[in-house]
Amino acid sequence: MPDLQINQMLDMQERGLHYGDGLFETLLKVNADIPLWSNHYHRLQRGCKKLCISLPDEKWLLDKIEAETSGYDSAVVKLIVTRGIGGRGLEMPTVNQASVFVLRYPYTAIDHTELELDVAICQTRLAINPNLAGIKHLNRLDYVLAAIELAEIGNKNEAILRDTDGYIVEGIVSNLFFCLRGEVYTPSLEFAGVEGIMRQQILKYLEDQAIHINIGRFNCDLLLSASECFLCNSVHGVRPVRCAWLSRRPPAIRTLRATASRHSIDR
Amino acid sequence: MPDLQINQMLDMQERGLHYGDGLFETLLKVNADIPLWSNHYHRLQRGCKKLCISLPDEKWLLDKIEAETSGYDSAVVKLIVTRGIGGRGLEMPTVNQASVFVLRYPYTAIDHTELELDVAICQTRLAINPNLAGIKHLNRLDYVLAAIELAEIGNKNEAILRDTDGYIVEGIVSNLFFCLRGEVYTPSLEFAGVEGIMRQQILKYLEDQAIHINIGRFNCDLLLSASECFLCNSVHGVRPVRCAWLSRRPPAIRTLRATASRHSIDR
Repeated sequence: MPDLQINQMLDMQERGLHYGDGLFETLLKVNADIPLWSNHYHRLQRGCKKLCISLPDEKWLLDKIEAETSGYDSAVVKLIVTRGIGGRGLEMPTVNQASVFVLRYPYTAIDHTELELDVAICQTRLAINPNLAGIKHLNRLDYVLAAIELAEIGNKNEAILRDTDGYIVEGIVSNLFFCLRGEVYTPSLEFAGVEGIMRQQILKYLEDQAIHINIGRFNCDLLLSASECFLCNSVHGVRPVRCAWLSRRPPAIRTLRATASRHSIDR
Repeated sequence: MPDLQINQMLDMQERGLHYGDGLFETLLKVNADIPLWSNHYHRLQRGCKKLCISLPDEKWLLDKIEAETSGYDSAVVKLIVTRGIGGRGLEMPTVNQASVFVLRYPYTAIDHTELELDVAICQTRLAINPNLAGIKHLNRLDYVLAAIELAEIGNKNEAILRDTDGYIVEGIVSNLFFCLRGEVYTPSLEFAGVEGIMRQQILKYLEDQAIHINIGRFNCDLLLSASECFLCNSVHGVRPVRCAWLSRRPPAIRTLRATASRHSIDR
Protein backbone atom coordinates (compact mmCIF):
# COMPACT_ATOMS: atom_id res chain seq x y z
CA MET A 1 0.00 0.00 0.00
CA PRO A 2 1.16 3.57 -0.57
CA ASP A 3 3.20 5.38 2.00
CA LEU A 4 0.59 7.61 3.60
CA GLN A 5 1.23 10.93 5.24
CA ILE A 6 -0.39 11.58 8.53
CA ASN A 7 -1.06 14.40 10.94
CA GLN A 8 1.35 16.83 9.42
CA MET A 9 0.64 20.33 8.33
CA LEU A 10 -0.97 20.19 4.93
CA ASP A 11 0.98 20.58 1.71
CA MET A 12 -0.06 23.59 -0.38
CA GLN A 13 -0.72 21.22 -3.29
CA GLU A 14 -3.13 19.11 -1.26
CA ARG A 15 -6.08 18.19 -3.50
CA GLY A 16 -8.37 18.22 -0.51
CA LEU A 17 -7.87 21.99 -0.49
CA HIS A 18 -7.83 22.58 -4.23
CA TYR A 19 -10.93 20.55 -5.15
CA GLY A 20 -12.40 19.09 -1.97
CA ASP A 21 -11.06 15.88 -3.53
CA GLY A 22 -11.60 13.51 -0.64
CA LEU A 23 -13.85 12.08 2.04
CA PHE A 24 -14.30 12.28 5.78
CA GLU A 25 -15.82 10.42 8.70
CA THR A 26 -16.80 11.86 12.05
CA LEU A 27 -16.31 9.18 14.69
CA LEU A 28 -17.14 8.98 18.35
CA LYS A 29 -14.57 7.43 20.66
CA VAL A 30 -16.21 6.39 23.91
CA ASN A 31 -14.92 4.01 26.59
CA ALA A 32 -11.85 3.38 24.42
CA ASP A 33 -14.09 2.04 21.65
CA ILE A 34 -15.26 3.50 18.32
CA PRO A 35 -18.95 2.58 18.04
CA LEU A 36 -19.98 1.40 14.57
CA TRP A 37 -16.42 1.61 13.23
CA SER A 38 -17.09 -1.05 10.56
CA ASN A 39 -19.99 0.98 9.23
CA HIS A 40 -17.85 4.11 9.05
CA TYR A 41 -15.05 2.21 7.33
CA HIS A 42 -17.43 0.68 4.79
CA ARG A 43 -18.89 4.09 3.94
CA LEU A 44 -15.34 5.39 3.47
CA GLN A 45 -14.69 2.37 1.27
CA ARG A 46 -17.76 3.14 -0.88
CA GLY A 47 -16.70 6.79 -1.14
CA CYS A 48 -13.13 5.90 -2.14
CA LYS A 49 -14.49 3.55 -4.80
CA LYS A 50 -16.77 6.23 -6.24
CA LEU A 51 -13.96 8.80 -6.33
CA CYS A 52 -11.26 6.31 -7.43
CA ILE A 53 -9.13 7.08 -4.36
CA SER A 54 -6.85 4.36 -2.93
CA LEU A 55 -8.37 3.30 0.34
CA PRO A 56 -5.93 3.10 3.23
CA ASP A 57 -5.72 -0.20 5.06
CA GLU A 58 -8.27 -0.54 7.90
CA LYS A 59 -5.78 -1.66 10.54
CA TRP A 60 -3.38 1.15 9.59
CA LEU A 61 -6.19 3.70 9.96
CA LEU A 62 -7.27 2.34 13.33
CA ASP A 63 -3.69 2.51 14.58
CA LYS A 64 -3.45 6.16 13.53
CA ILE A 65 -6.73 7.01 15.23
CA GLU A 66 -5.54 5.20 18.35
CA ALA A 67 -2.24 7.08 18.30
CA GLU A 68 -4.06 10.41 18.03
CA THR A 69 -6.57 9.64 20.79
CA SER A 70 -4.53 7.53 23.21
CA GLY A 71 -5.06 8.72 26.77
CA TYR A 72 -8.52 10.03 25.88
CA ASP A 73 -11.42 7.96 27.09
CA SER A 74 -13.80 9.85 24.87
CA ALA A 75 -13.34 12.14 21.90
CA VAL A 76 -14.87 13.17 18.62
CA VAL A 77 -12.49 12.14 15.83
CA LYS A 78 -12.57 13.56 12.33
CA LEU A 79 -10.85 11.34 9.80
CA ILE A 80 -10.09 12.90 6.40
CA VAL A 81 -8.83 10.87 3.42
CA THR A 82 -7.95 12.70 0.19
CA ARG A 83 -6.47 11.78 -3.18
CA GLY A 84 -3.21 13.39 -2.01
CA ILE A 85 -0.81 15.94 -3.44
CA GLY A 86 -0.81 17.71 -6.89
CA GLY A 87 -0.68 17.94 -9.89
CA ARG A 88 -1.35 21.11 -11.92
CA GLY A 89 -4.91 21.81 -12.97
CA LEU A 90 -7.14 18.78 -12.67
CA GLU A 91 -4.50 16.29 -13.80
CA MET A 92 -4.40 13.24 -11.58
CA PRO A 93 -1.31 12.93 -9.36
CA THR A 94 1.35 10.71 -10.92
CA VAL A 95 1.77 8.91 -7.59
CA ASN A 96 -1.39 7.36 -6.17
CA GLN A 97 -0.79 8.36 -2.58
CA ALA A 98 -3.75 9.25 -0.41
CA SER A 99 -3.40 11.78 2.39
CA VAL A 100 -4.87 10.92 5.78
CA PHE A 101 -5.60 13.43 8.52
CA VAL A 102 -6.85 12.56 11.99
CA LEU A 103 -8.23 15.41 14.11
CA ARG A 104 -9.33 15.08 17.71
CA TYR A 105 -12.02 17.23 19.37
CA PRO A 106 -13.46 17.07 22.87
CA TYR A 107 -16.69 15.09 23.28
CA THR A 108 -19.41 16.20 25.65
CA ALA A 109 -22.07 13.57 26.16
CA ILE A 110 -25.57 14.97 25.76
CA ASP A 111 -28.60 13.37 27.34
CA HIS A 112 -30.48 13.41 24.05
CA THR A 113 -33.60 11.83 25.48
CA GLU A 114 -34.10 15.20 27.21
CA LEU A 115 -32.85 17.64 24.60
CA GLU A 116 -35.43 18.42 21.97
CA LEU A 117 -34.23 20.21 18.87
CA ASP A 118 -35.92 23.32 17.59
CA VAL A 119 -35.47 23.18 13.82
CA ALA A 120 -35.93 25.59 10.94
CA ILE A 121 -36.70 24.82 7.30
CA CYS A 122 -33.72 26.11 5.32
CA GLN A 123 -34.02 28.23 2.19
CA THR A 124 -30.56 27.05 1.07
CA ARG A 125 -30.98 24.04 -1.23
CA LEU A 126 -28.82 20.97 -1.74
CA ALA A 127 -27.63 20.35 -5.29
CA ILE A 128 -28.96 17.22 -6.96
CA ASN A 129 -25.97 15.03 -7.66
CA PRO A 130 -26.59 11.27 -8.00
CA ASN A 131 -22.84 10.74 -8.55
CA LEU A 132 -21.93 12.06 -5.12
CA ALA A 133 -25.14 11.52 -3.13
CA GLY A 134 -24.76 9.33 -0.05
CA ILE A 135 -20.98 9.48 0.33
CA LYS A 136 -19.34 11.81 2.84
CA HIS A 137 -17.13 13.85 0.52
CA LEU A 138 -15.41 17.17 1.18
CA ASN A 139 -17.56 19.36 -1.13
CA ARG A 140 -19.70 20.88 1.60
CA LEU A 141 -20.41 24.46 0.52
CA ASP A 142 -24.18 23.87 0.46
CA TYR A 143 -23.97 22.91 4.12
CA VAL A 144 -21.72 25.85 4.96
CA LEU A 145 -24.28 28.22 3.42
CA ALA A 146 -27.08 26.45 5.29
CA ALA A 147 -25.14 26.82 8.57
CA ILE A 148 -24.75 30.55 7.86
CA GLU A 149 -28.51 30.78 7.22
CA LEU A 150 -29.24 28.87 10.44
CA ALA A 151 -27.01 31.24 12.44
CA GLU A 152 -28.80 34.22 10.88
CA ILE A 153 -32.22 32.79 11.78
CA GLY A 154 -31.00 32.40 15.38
CA ASN A 155 -32.50 30.39 18.27
CA LYS A 156 -32.71 27.16 16.27
CA ASN A 157 -30.62 24.02 16.80
CA GLU A 158 -30.77 22.54 13.33
CA ALA A 159 -32.30 23.11 9.91
CA ILE A 160 -34.01 20.81 7.43
CA LEU A 161 -32.55 20.98 3.93
CA ARG A 162 -34.42 20.49 0.66
CA ASP A 163 -32.86 19.69 -2.72
CA THR A 164 -33.13 22.03 -5.71
CA ASP A 165 -36.32 20.20 -6.75
CA GLY A 166 -37.86 21.09 -3.38
CA TYR A 167 -37.82 17.62 -1.78
CA ILE A 168 -36.69 17.32 1.84
CA VAL A 169 -33.37 15.51 2.33
CA GLU A 170 -31.87 15.83 5.81
CA GLY A 171 -30.60 18.21 8.49
CA ILE A 172 -27.32 20.12 8.15
CA VAL A 173 -25.46 17.58 10.32
CA SER A 174 -28.07 14.84 10.70
CA ASN A 175 -30.50 12.54 8.92
CA LEU A 176 -34.24 12.95 9.25
CA PHE A 177 -37.07 10.58 10.21
CA PHE A 178 -40.70 11.48 10.72
CA CYS A 179 -43.96 9.80 11.50
CA LEU A 180 -47.35 10.37 9.94
CA ARG A 181 -50.57 8.43 10.52
CA GLY A 182 -48.63 5.65 12.24
CA GLU A 183 -46.07 5.19 9.45
CA VAL A 184 -42.37 6.02 9.48
CA TYR A 185 -40.75 8.08 6.71
CA THR A 186 -37.20 9.01 5.82
CA PRO A 187 -36.02 10.82 2.67
CA SER A 188 -34.26 8.91 -0.08
CA LEU A 189 -30.58 9.84 -0.44
CA GLU A 190 -30.37 8.88 -4.09
CA PHE A 191 -30.02 12.46 -5.35
CA ALA A 192 -28.56 14.41 -2.43
CA GLY A 193 -27.56 14.02 1.20
CA VAL A 194 -25.27 11.88 3.33
CA GLU A 195 -26.03 8.28 4.16
CA GLY A 196 -25.58 8.52 7.92
CA ILE A 197 -24.37 5.58 9.99
CA MET A 198 -27.05 6.18 12.63
CA ARG A 199 -29.67 6.27 9.84
CA GLN A 200 -28.43 2.86 8.67
CA GLN A 201 -28.76 1.55 12.24
CA ILE A 202 -32.31 2.82 12.55
CA LEU A 203 -33.30 1.30 9.19
CA LYS A 204 -31.80 -2.01 10.34
CA TYR A 205 -33.67 -1.79 13.62
CA LEU A 206 -36.96 -1.11 11.83
CA GLU A 207 -36.34 -4.03 9.50
CA ASP A 208 -35.57 -6.34 12.44
CA GLN A 209 -38.81 -5.23 14.06
CA ALA A 210 -40.69 -5.74 10.78
CA ILE A 211 -41.79 -2.10 10.89
CA HIS A 212 -42.45 -0.77 7.40
CA ILE A 213 -40.56 2.39 6.43
CA ASN A 214 -41.34 4.74 3.56
CA ILE A 215 -38.16 5.86 1.80
CA GLY A 216 -38.73 8.33 -1.01
CA ARG A 217 -38.79 11.91 -2.19
CA PHE A 218 -41.17 13.77 0.08
CA ASN A 219 -42.18 17.39 -0.10
CA CYS A 220 -42.12 19.78 2.79
CA ASP A 221 -45.92 19.71 3.23
CA LEU A 222 -45.74 16.05 4.17
CA LEU A 223 -43.12 16.77 6.83
CA LEU A 224 -45.25 19.63 8.13
CA SER A 225 -48.11 17.16 8.60
CA ALA A 226 -45.91 14.83 10.68
CA SER A 227 -46.94 13.92 14.19
CA GLU A 228 -43.36 13.20 15.23
CA CYS A 229 -39.92 13.88 13.86
CA PHE A 230 -36.38 13.09 14.93
CA LEU A 231 -32.86 13.71 13.69
CA CYS A 232 -29.85 11.44 14.09
CA ASN A 233 -26.11 11.29 13.63
CA SER A 234 -23.16 9.26 14.90
CA VAL A 235 -22.03 11.77 17.50
CA HIS A 236 -25.31 12.71 19.18
CA GLY A 237 -27.35 9.61 18.39
CA VAL A 238 -31.09 10.24 18.01
CA ARG A 239 -32.61 13.55 18.99
CA PRO A 240 -36.30 14.46 18.90
CA VAL A 241 -37.52 17.54 17.10
CA ARG A 242 -39.78 19.94 18.96
CA CYS A 243 -41.76 22.07 16.57
CA ALA A 244 -45.02 23.92 16.44
CA TRP A 245 -46.14 21.55 13.71
CA LEU A 246 -45.66 18.47 15.91
CA SER A 247 -48.68 18.23 18.12
CA ARG A 248 -48.43 14.72 19.52
CA ARG A 249 -46.00 11.81 19.82
CA PRO A 250 -47.32 8.31 19.26
CA PRO A 251 -45.86 5.90 21.83
CA ALA A 252 -44.63 3.51 19.13
CA ILE A 253 -42.28 6.08 17.72
CA ARG A 254 -41.13 7.24 21.11
CA THR A 255 -40.13 3.66 21.83
CA LEU A 256 -38.36 3.37 18.52
CA ARG A 257 -36.42 6.53 19.20
CA ALA A 258 -35.39 5.45 22.67
CA THR A 259 -34.34 2.03 21.40
CA ALA A 260 -32.32 3.50 18.57
CA SER A 261 -30.70 5.85 21.06
CA ARG A 262 -29.66 3.01 23.33
CA HIS A 263 -28.42 1.15 20.30
CA SER A 264 -26.05 4.00 19.54
CA ILE A 265 -24.71 4.87 22.95
CA ASP A 266 -24.39 1.30 24.23
CA ARG A 267 -21.92 0.33 21.52
CA MET B 1 -8.67 44.32 7.51
CA PRO B 2 -7.90 40.94 9.08
CA ASP B 3 -4.36 39.75 9.43
CA LEU B 4 -4.11 37.26 6.58
CA GLN B 5 -1.86 34.27 6.44
CA ILE B 6 0.04 33.65 3.29
CA ASN B 7 2.09 30.97 1.63
CA GLN B 8 2.58 28.85 4.67
CA MET B 9 1.87 25.20 5.03
CA LEU B 10 -1.83 24.77 5.63
CA ASP B 11 -3.30 24.42 9.08
CA MET B 12 -5.09 21.11 9.70
CA GLN B 13 -8.23 23.08 10.63
CA GLU B 14 -8.25 24.93 7.31
CA ARG B 15 -11.86 25.16 6.12
CA GLY B 16 -10.69 25.01 2.53
CA LEU B 17 -9.76 21.38 3.27
CA HIS B 18 -12.72 20.48 5.49
CA TYR B 19 -15.52 21.88 3.31
CA GLY B 20 -13.98 23.36 0.16
CA ASP B 21 -15.04 26.59 1.86
CA GLY B 22 -13.37 29.08 -0.44
CA LEU B 23 -12.65 30.35 -3.92
CA PHE B 24 -9.83 30.41 -6.41
CA GLU B 25 -8.59 32.24 -9.48
CA THR B 26 -6.15 30.95 -12.08
CA LEU B 27 -4.17 33.89 -13.42
CA LEU B 28 -1.67 34.28 -16.19
CA LYS B 29 1.37 36.40 -15.55
CA VAL B 30 2.95 37.45 -18.83
CA ASN B 31 5.47 40.23 -19.50
CA ALA B 32 5.29 41.16 -15.83
CA ASP B 33 1.57 41.86 -16.18
CA ILE B 34 -1.57 39.96 -15.11
CA PRO B 35 -3.98 40.22 -18.05
CA LEU B 36 -7.58 40.94 -17.02
CA TRP B 37 -6.67 41.19 -13.32
CA SER B 38 -9.66 43.46 -12.56
CA ASN B 39 -12.03 40.87 -14.00
CA HIS B 40 -10.46 38.14 -11.89
CA TYR B 41 -10.63 40.31 -8.78
CA HIS B 42 -14.27 41.21 -9.41
CA ARG B 43 -15.21 37.55 -9.81
CA LEU B 44 -13.40 36.80 -6.54
CA GLN B 45 -15.35 39.69 -5.00
CA ARG B 46 -18.68 38.25 -6.22
CA GLY B 47 -17.70 34.81 -4.89
CA CYS B 48 -16.68 36.18 -1.48
CA LYS B 49 -19.99 38.04 -1.27
CA LYS B 50 -21.99 34.90 -2.08
CA LEU B 51 -20.08 32.82 0.48
CA CYS B 52 -19.90 35.63 3.10
CA ILE B 53 -16.09 35.50 3.14
CA SER B 54 -14.12 38.66 3.95
CA LEU B 55 -12.46 39.74 0.75
CA PRO B 56 -8.77 40.59 1.08
CA ASP B 57 -7.69 44.03 -0.09
CA GLU B 58 -6.85 44.19 -3.83
CA LYS B 59 -3.50 45.94 -3.40
CA TRP B 60 -2.48 43.48 -0.66
CA LEU B 61 -3.32 40.53 -2.93
CA LEU B 62 -1.38 42.00 -5.87
CA ASP B 63 1.65 42.52 -3.64
CA LYS B 64 1.51 38.88 -2.51
CA ILE B 65 1.22 37.65 -6.09
CA GLU B 66 4.13 39.89 -7.08
CA ALA B 67 6.23 38.58 -4.18
CA GLU B 68 5.54 34.99 -5.21
CA THR B 69 6.29 35.56 -8.91
CA SER B 70 9.04 38.19 -8.81
CA GLY B 71 11.86 37.23 -11.15
CA TYR B 72 9.42 35.31 -13.37
CA ASP B 73 8.46 36.99 -16.61
CA SER B 74 5.65 34.53 -17.11
CA ALA B 75 3.84 32.09 -14.85
CA VAL B 76 0.49 30.54 -14.15
CA VAL B 77 -0.64 31.71 -10.70
CA LYS B 78 -3.31 30.01 -8.63
CA LEU B 79 -4.79 32.25 -5.98
CA ILE B 80 -6.89 30.54 -3.28
CA VAL B 81 -8.95 32.48 -0.73
CA THR B 82 -10.79 30.56 2.01
CA ARG B 83 -12.88 31.41 5.06
CA GLY B 84 -9.86 30.47 7.17
CA ILE B 85 -9.26 28.23 10.18
CA GLY B 86 -11.78 26.19 12.30
CA GLY B 87 -14.09 25.73 14.16
CA ARG B 88 -15.64 22.35 15.03
CA GLY B 89 -18.35 20.98 12.78
CA LEU B 90 -19.85 23.60 10.53
CA GLU B 91 -19.71 26.40 13.11
CA MET B 92 -18.35 29.60 11.66
CA PRO B 93 -14.87 30.60 12.88
CA THR B 94 -15.04 33.09 15.76
CA VAL B 95 -12.39 35.23 14.05
CA ASN B 96 -13.24 36.34 10.53
CA GLN B 97 -9.81 35.78 9.05
CA ALA B 98 -9.54 34.59 5.47
CA SER B 99 -6.63 32.39 4.38
CA VAL B 100 -4.82 33.30 1.17
CA PHE B 101 -2.58 30.95 -0.78
CA VAL B 102 -0.57 31.89 -3.85
CA LEU B 103 0.86 29.04 -5.94
CA ARG B 104 3.15 29.52 -8.92
CA TYR B 105 3.35 27.10 -11.87
CA PRO B 106 5.40 27.32 -15.07
CA TYR B 107 3.62 28.76 -18.11
CA THR B 108 4.23 27.44 -21.58
CA ALA B 109 2.75 29.63 -24.29
CA ILE B 110 0.70 27.66 -26.80
CA ASP B 111 0.03 28.89 -30.31
CA HIS B 112 -3.68 28.27 -29.94
CA THR B 113 -4.54 29.42 -33.44
CA GLU B 114 -2.83 26.17 -34.55
CA LEU B 115 -3.86 23.76 -31.83
CA GLU B 116 -7.29 22.31 -32.37
CA LEU B 117 -8.88 20.47 -29.48
CA ASP B 118 -10.35 17.03 -29.85
CA VAL B 119 -13.20 16.91 -27.36
CA ALA B 120 -15.42 14.22 -25.87
CA ILE B 121 -18.93 14.52 -24.48
CA CYS B 122 -18.68 13.57 -20.80
CA GLN B 123 -21.07 11.18 -19.07
CA THR B 124 -20.25 12.80 -15.70
CA ARG B 125 -22.83 15.48 -15.00
CA LEU B 126 -22.58 18.82 -13.21
CA ALA B 127 -24.91 19.32 -10.26
CA ILE B 128 -27.52 22.03 -10.66
CA ASN B 129 -26.80 24.61 -8.01
CA PRO B 130 -28.04 28.17 -8.64
CA ASN B 131 -26.50 29.27 -5.32
CA LEU B 132 -22.99 28.42 -6.43
CA ALA B 133 -23.23 28.60 -10.24
CA GLY B 134 -20.88 31.08 -11.86
CA ILE B 135 -18.43 31.58 -8.99
CA LYS B 136 -15.08 29.79 -8.88
CA HIS B 137 -15.42 27.95 -5.58
CA LEU B 138 -13.38 25.02 -4.28
CA ASN B 139 -16.10 22.31 -4.51
CA ARG B 140 -14.81 20.69 -7.69
CA LEU B 141 -15.49 16.96 -7.35
CA ASP B 142 -17.73 16.93 -10.44
CA TYR B 143 -14.79 18.22 -12.44
CA VAL B 144 -12.37 15.77 -10.82
CA LEU B 145 -14.65 12.89 -11.84
CA ALA B 146 -14.96 14.34 -15.34
CA ALA B 147 -11.16 14.58 -15.58
CA ILE B 148 -10.90 10.91 -14.57
CA GLU B 149 -13.47 10.01 -17.23
CA LEU B 150 -11.57 12.05 -19.84
CA ALA B 151 -8.32 10.26 -18.96
CA GLU B 152 -10.08 6.90 -19.26
CA ILE B 153 -11.47 7.81 -22.70
CA GLY B 154 -7.93 8.72 -23.79
CA ASN B 155 -6.75 10.70 -26.84
CA LYS B 156 -9.02 13.67 -26.14
CA ASN B 157 -7.94 17.14 -25.01
CA GLU B 158 -11.11 18.28 -23.28
CA ALA B 159 -14.64 17.16 -22.52
CA ILE B 160 -18.00 18.92 -22.70
CA LEU B 161 -20.02 18.68 -19.49
CA ARG B 162 -23.80 18.59 -19.18
CA ASP B 163 -25.83 19.33 -16.05
CA THR B 164 -28.03 16.73 -14.36
CA ASP B 165 -30.95 17.92 -16.53
CA GLY B 166 -28.90 17.08 -19.64
CA TYR B 167 -28.15 20.63 -20.82
CA ILE B 168 -24.63 21.42 -22.01
CA VAL B 169 -22.69 23.79 -19.73
CA GLU B 170 -18.95 24.03 -20.46
CA GLY B 171 -15.67 22.13 -20.75
CA ILE B 172 -13.82 20.76 -17.72
CA VAL B 173 -11.45 23.75 -17.67
CA SER B 174 -13.03 26.05 -20.24
CA ASN B 175 -16.20 27.76 -21.42
CA LEU B 176 -17.94 26.78 -24.62
CA PHE B 177 -19.12 28.72 -27.67
CA PHE B 178 -20.57 27.28 -30.84
CA CYS B 179 -22.01 28.48 -34.10
CA LEU B 180 -25.06 27.22 -35.92
CA ARG B 181 -26.70 28.65 -39.05
CA GLY B 182 -24.67 31.85 -38.70
CA GLU B 183 -25.61 32.47 -35.05
CA VAL B 184 -23.40 32.26 -31.96
CA TYR B 185 -24.43 30.27 -28.89
CA THR B 186 -23.04 29.86 -25.40
CA PRO B 187 -24.65 27.99 -22.49
CA SER B 188 -26.24 29.93 -19.64
CA LEU B 189 -24.33 29.58 -16.36
CA GLU B 190 -27.36 30.24 -14.17
CA PHE B 191 -27.59 26.68 -12.86
CA ALA B 192 -24.07 25.24 -13.17
CA GLY B 193 -20.63 26.11 -14.46
CA VAL B 194 -17.98 28.77 -14.00
CA GLU B 195 -18.31 32.27 -15.40
CA GLY B 196 -14.96 32.42 -17.18
CA ILE B 197 -13.09 35.69 -17.62
CA MET B 198 -12.33 34.89 -21.26
CA ARG B 199 -16.03 34.13 -21.81
CA GLN B 200 -16.86 37.59 -20.42
CA GLN B 201 -14.35 39.14 -22.84
CA ILE B 202 -15.84 37.34 -25.80
CA LEU B 203 -19.38 38.36 -24.82
CA LYS B 204 -18.19 41.97 -24.53
CA TYR B 205 -16.50 41.74 -27.92
CA LEU B 206 -19.67 40.38 -29.51
CA GLU B 207 -21.71 43.15 -27.93
CA ASP B 208 -19.26 45.80 -29.20
CA GLN B 209 -19.56 44.31 -32.69
CA ALA B 210 -23.38 44.22 -32.38
CA ILE B 211 -23.29 40.47 -33.00
CA HIS B 212 -26.27 38.74 -31.42
CA ILE B 213 -25.51 35.86 -29.07
CA ASN B 214 -27.88 33.18 -27.85
CA ILE B 215 -27.36 32.45 -24.15
CA GLY B 216 -29.56 29.67 -22.80
CA ARG B 217 -29.96 26.04 -21.86
CA PHE B 218 -29.12 24.03 -24.95
CA ASN B 219 -29.24 20.28 -25.35
CA CYS B 220 -26.45 18.19 -26.76
CA ASP B 221 -28.20 17.69 -30.10
CA LEU B 222 -27.95 21.41 -30.81
CA LEU B 223 -24.20 21.34 -30.14
CA LEU B 224 -23.84 18.31 -32.39
CA SER B 225 -25.46 20.31 -35.19
CA ALA B 226 -22.93 23.13 -34.81
CA SER B 227 -20.77 24.16 -37.71
CA GLU B 228 -18.06 25.53 -35.45
CA CYS B 229 -17.16 25.31 -31.81
CA PHE B 230 -14.48 26.77 -29.60
CA LEU B 231 -13.45 26.65 -25.95
CA CYS B 232 -11.82 29.40 -23.94
CA ASN B 233 -10.12 30.12 -20.63
CA SER B 234 -7.78 32.70 -19.13
CA VAL B 235 -4.62 30.66 -19.48
CA HIS B 236 -4.92 29.34 -23.03
CA GLY B 237 -7.23 31.99 -24.50
CA VAL B 238 -9.48 30.73 -27.30
CA ARG B 239 -9.00 27.29 -28.81
CA PRO B 240 -10.95 25.79 -31.68
CA VAL B 241 -12.58 22.40 -31.39
CA ARG B 242 -11.93 19.82 -34.08
CA CYS B 243 -14.63 17.22 -34.16
CA ALA B 244 -16.23 14.87 -36.58
CA TRP B 245 -19.47 16.75 -36.16
CA LEU B 246 -17.90 20.08 -37.26
CA SER B 247 -17.77 20.05 -41.01
CA ARG B 248 -17.14 23.67 -41.92
CA ARG B 249 -16.02 26.95 -40.42
CA PRO B 250 -17.80 30.14 -41.48
CA PRO B 251 -15.28 32.97 -41.94
CA ALA B 252 -17.22 35.29 -39.59
CA ILE B 253 -16.64 32.99 -36.66
CA ARG B 254 -13.03 32.36 -37.55
CA THR B 255 -12.49 36.13 -37.43
CA LEU B 256 -14.25 36.38 -34.11
CA ARG B 257 -12.08 33.67 -32.67
CA ALA B 258 -8.86 35.22 -33.92
CA THR B 259 -9.89 38.63 -32.60
CA ALA B 260 -10.81 37.26 -29.21
CA SER B 261 -7.49 35.44 -29.11
CA ARG B 262 -5.55 38.61 -29.79
CA HIS B 263 -7.63 40.35 -27.18
CA SER B 264 -6.47 37.88 -24.59
CA ILE B 265 -2.81 37.53 -25.34
CA ASP B 266 -2.14 41.20 -26.04
CA ARG B 267 -3.11 42.26 -22.52
